[in-house]
Amino acid sequence: MSQLQAAMAENDVDAVVLRLAENVVLVTGWYVQIPGLGLVVVPREGAASLLVPDYEADEAAGVWTGDVRTFPAIRNDGPPTGGAIQALLEGLAAEHGVRGGVVGFEGSFETIAPASLAGEPNAVGLPTQALLRETFAAERLTDVTETLESMRAIKSERDLDRLRTVNEVALIGLEAFKERAVPGKSEVEIMAAVEAAVCARGHGHRGARVVRAYATVYSGPDLAAGWQYFRSRTRVVERGDVVMLELGTVADGYWSDHTRTVVAGQAGAAQREAYGAMRAASSAAFAAAVPGATGGEVDRAARETCTAAGFTQFPHHTGHGVGFRYHESRPQLVPGGTDVLAAGMVVVSEPGIYAPELHGGFRHEDDAVVTADGAVPLVTTDYGLDAGEGA
Amino acid sequence: MSQLQAAMAENDVDAVVLRLAENVVLVTGWYVQIPGLGLVVVPREGAASLLVPDYEADEAAGVWTGDVRTFPAIRNDGPPTGGAIQALLEGLAAEHGVRGGVVGFEGSFETIAPASLAGEPNAVGLPTQALLRETFAAERLTDVTETLESMRAIKSERDLDRLRTVNEVALIGLEAFKERAVPGKSEVEIMAAVEAAVCARGHGHRGARVVRAYATVYSGPDLAAGWQYFRSRTRVVERGDVVMLELGTVADGYWSDHTRTVVAGQAGAAQREAYGAMRAASSAAFAAAVPGATGGEVDRAARETCTAAGFTQFPHHTGHGVGFRYHESRPQLVPGGTDVLAAGMVVVSEPGIYAPELHGGFRHEDDAVVTADGAVPLVTTDYGLDAGEGA
Repeated sequence: MSQLQAAMAENDVDAVVLRLAENVVLVTGWYVQIPGLGLVVVPREGAASLLVPDYEADEAAGVWTGDVRTFPAIRNDGPPTGGAIQALLEGLAAEHGVRGGVVGFEGSFETIAPASLAGEPNAVGLPTQALLRETFAAERLTDVTETLESMRAIKSERDLDRLRTVNEVALIGLEAFKERAVPGKSEVEIMAAVEAAVCARGHGHRGARVVRAYATVYSGPDLAAGWQYFRSRTRVVERGDVVMLELGTVADGYWSDHTRTVVAGQAGAAQREAYGAMRAASSAAFAAAVPGATGGEVDRAARETCTAAGFTQFPHHTGHGVGFRYHESRPQLVPGGTDVLAAGMVVVSEPGIYAPELHGGFRHEDDAVVTADGAVPLVTTDYGLDAGEGA
Repeated sequence: MSQLQAAMAENDVDAVVLRLAENVVLVTGWYVQIPGLGLVVVPREGAASLLVPDYEADEAAGVWTGDVRTFPAIRNDGPPTGGAIQALLEGLAAEHGVRGGVVGFEGSFETIAPASLAGEPNAVGLPTQALLRETFAAERLTDVTETLESMRAIKSERDLDRLRTVNEVALIGLEAFKERAVPGKSEVEIMAAVEAAVCARGHGHRGARVVRAYATVYSGPDLAAGWQYFRSRTRVVERGDVVMLELGTVADGYWSDHTRTVVAGQAGAAQREAYGAMRAASSAAFAAAVPGATGGEVDRAARETCTAAGFTQFPHHTGHGVGFRYHESRPQLVPGGTDVLAAGMVVVSEPGIYAPELHGGFRHEDDAVVTADGAVPLVTTDYGLDAGEGA
């Protein structure tokens, strides 16, 4: 908040209005339920206000101790929701003396994190811009995406605590994956079992209110060439197949990103070697992820470790930021990347080695917080490469 | 396509560029995998082009028989994705002679359908607008949301066929719900089981490639007052509880919307009566949904049926359009609604009766296509109100 208000003062922005789920989480910690029905107004000076539907008020007040204002939603027997939101915004514009000023909006968020009803996320387009112009009688609107992106790159203690929760919740899915990635199961069955385990057992973990998992499972020789085509199929896993899980997990608006690879049955020697090189590359990336390092240096540490072990890391990114979204735009851990790491950033590393002679590919991804001693994983699990034959 | 091009000619729009998953589905039938990495360019005259990542090309060509152009994505060892998309757009602008013209964009889509990687949907913001201005050397951009919304309100035969598929897939979830909504299960367990069933068994149904379910389960006395708070909890269902499922399902970019209510154990007489009134209201809504009727008339038919049975329908909407999104913006079946129905529209009806004396509330929702004989459900299932005691 103070960081946002400082940036507002510097850029002559009088008020900022946020309505994307991820930015409402950033400022208030509240994970909105129905996308768009949750807004934050931040004046240049004074307290921010959270606007939520009336039926969410009690629970929101338990998460955000600041000013909460409510509007009716869904029912048709009161004032329409749009008009009520408009009236609240006009009231706040007057209260804070920011009518006629410059209003900041989320103009450049094009990849967005869904709210808890994930099937229908929301965006900020021309209608929101018209609403802000009208309710603030705005002199002009200004895009504050850059400020928000830079604010959220470094996580607070509260953020780290919540990211630890979502990482622990994700472990439920990683374990379910290893149990199910066995001969005879289809990719979509394994995917469904992972998501169901995270959902059924993740809710309530360390008080998590809203948990969802987004899993993709891919298997077999296509992994060598088609690793990038993340789409679970009805393909049935055969003995000896490499099986890969991509898993995005969200708990109360905080996101984690994990990957695991196992072999249905037992891995061969060449597969074990490649897997070992990939794991070493991941460790090297985390070790290099110290404050002041560039994303390019972290990427290089991973690739050089792979090369030293006789393998070639695939030319996708080595990693990226994570937390308020499944993939954050910074830092990018890529060849030549110039983003500079700082303590409190949370990054993933996910080097991958893919080759036909390995009958697939290997990737392993974890989330870690940047410290002076390198990036420290938020959770750890290492169950090896053999998923076995199943029951 | 011809409808879109006619609207473009009428409004002096030279080209339209679409990058929201739902609009790519509308024009080409292709459901993009990674949000934003899939675009359609429609010139005012001539053929449309679909732009997809190179690794998606074969599968996309199996769905869309028109012009498919590809760009590299995800890997870092070729031209950057952004630049490659830009070059394709510039080429198309030149080919169609629309450089310097008016370019239509999805300016007012603020509620959006996610692509198949649902954890990170995309939006159209300032960066896309800048891209269009630059690559088309556009005279100006113009918002074509209204044209797209009106095009998609009436479904083609292809659309209806695919909507039948997703409705059949959703039935898997409705059946799984009834089996699990029994004493001793938690809301999140039931939710997870429904989603897992749809995912594991829906893939491949009538050739469906990509299936996801978005379920919410709510139970117990809170349904009477808190029906609108769609958030599955760790609450364990008790004998006699009313249990409600809200289910959005997507198969290859086509969406359905269903609700079911059961009683864990056996319903009482008053509950059965209310449930019957609600079902009758739903049937009345569908019977009234003939071409030429207004949304308000359909809503009134439902409410009057409820009143005649001695109950009061809750003041949320009676229904809405569905298909390219979980909830479409038109037609709205609401009190006083002025949207006029037409043959080929697909609507849901979901009247609800909620009251403390019923120990909860009852809502039942199905999807139906508007015909001269009223709206005909795309699938039917009627398993009554008693979920029983479970195993």
